[in-house]
Amino acid sequence: MSKAFFLEDISVGQRFVGEGSITVSAEEIKAFAAQFDPQPFHLDEDAAQDSFFGGLAASGWHTAALTMRLLVDGGAPIGSGVIGAGGELTWPRPTRPGDTLSVETEVMEVVPSRSRPDRGMVTLRTETRNQNGEVLQVAVMKTIAFRRPTP
Amino acid sequence: MSKAFFLEDISVGQRFVGEGSITVSAEEIKAFAAQFDPQPFHLDEDAAQDSFFGGLAASGWHTAALTMRLLVDGGAPIGSGVIGAGGELTWPRPTRPGDTLSVETEVMEVVPSRSRPDRGMVTLRTETRNQNGEVLQVAVMKTIAFRRPTP
Repeated sequence: MSKAFFLEDISVGQRFVGEGSITVSAEEIKAFAAQFDPQPFHLDEDAAQDSFFGGLAASGWHTAALTMRLLVDGGAPIGSGVIGAGGELTWPRPTRPGDTLSVETEVMEVVPSRSRPDRGMVTLRTETRNQNGEVLQVAVMKTIAFRRPTP
Repeated sequence: MSKAFFLEDISVGQRFVGEGSITVSAEEIKAFAAQFDPQPFHLDEDAAQDSFFGGLAASGWHTAALTMRLLVDGGAPIGSGVIGAGGELTWPRPTRPGDTLSVETEVMEVVPSRSRPDRGMVTLRTETRNQNGEVLQVAVMKTIAFRRPTP
């Protein structure tokens, strides 16, 4: 990452635009589903055609995992790491084969810890979009950020 | 699954106890992290020792994905599938190497669709625990369930 942000560098309204992107293939969608979400609409084009999804769709957890990868690869340039404590997810539409995902993140809240002055809770709102700008996931996650270590 | 529940069979307060379990190895934790969450505390025992986690810890998204696997493998026996629209996640503690995960789910809300009588929104609260009964994840997810298809 070009610049590492520590707790004291992070403020509400700050935006991080991920420069990276990940394109997802049908094979990758099926491989993730076979391991973690083996339902017909994530595994097989024909079965998916007749399902709620009307075609092969990635597991929402696959979208979430790819989003995390984009955040770790610079989308959320937090020097102490992207350490989630929890949060809210929505999947307005599924990731489809061939979709290219990218992320944009806004800082919603910064709460320094009273009991532990080396850290704080930072709430990040991350939108995951495909190549058409369609929103695939909105994640509002509480993350733990640390102050810059003293040398 | 022994019995498939459709929308008309699901009611608030119902509990589903997953009979399956999944044991996670250090290798699996690292493999998931290498693909989706490549941060030192998920990838390397030594680096993890000196981190916030104090030892190798699975990505929260790995815990979420394994939870989904347990739900699909009978933990949430919904006949039309486990189709998430979104929800809330918390990770009270991380999954560790050797942990054996299992799930229990309670139905929190059932809202039949007014516009589409074949379906409804079912809110499920799933606790993922390890072999010591420690809660690794609480997920409150909105899922779409369908009525039993007419033959």
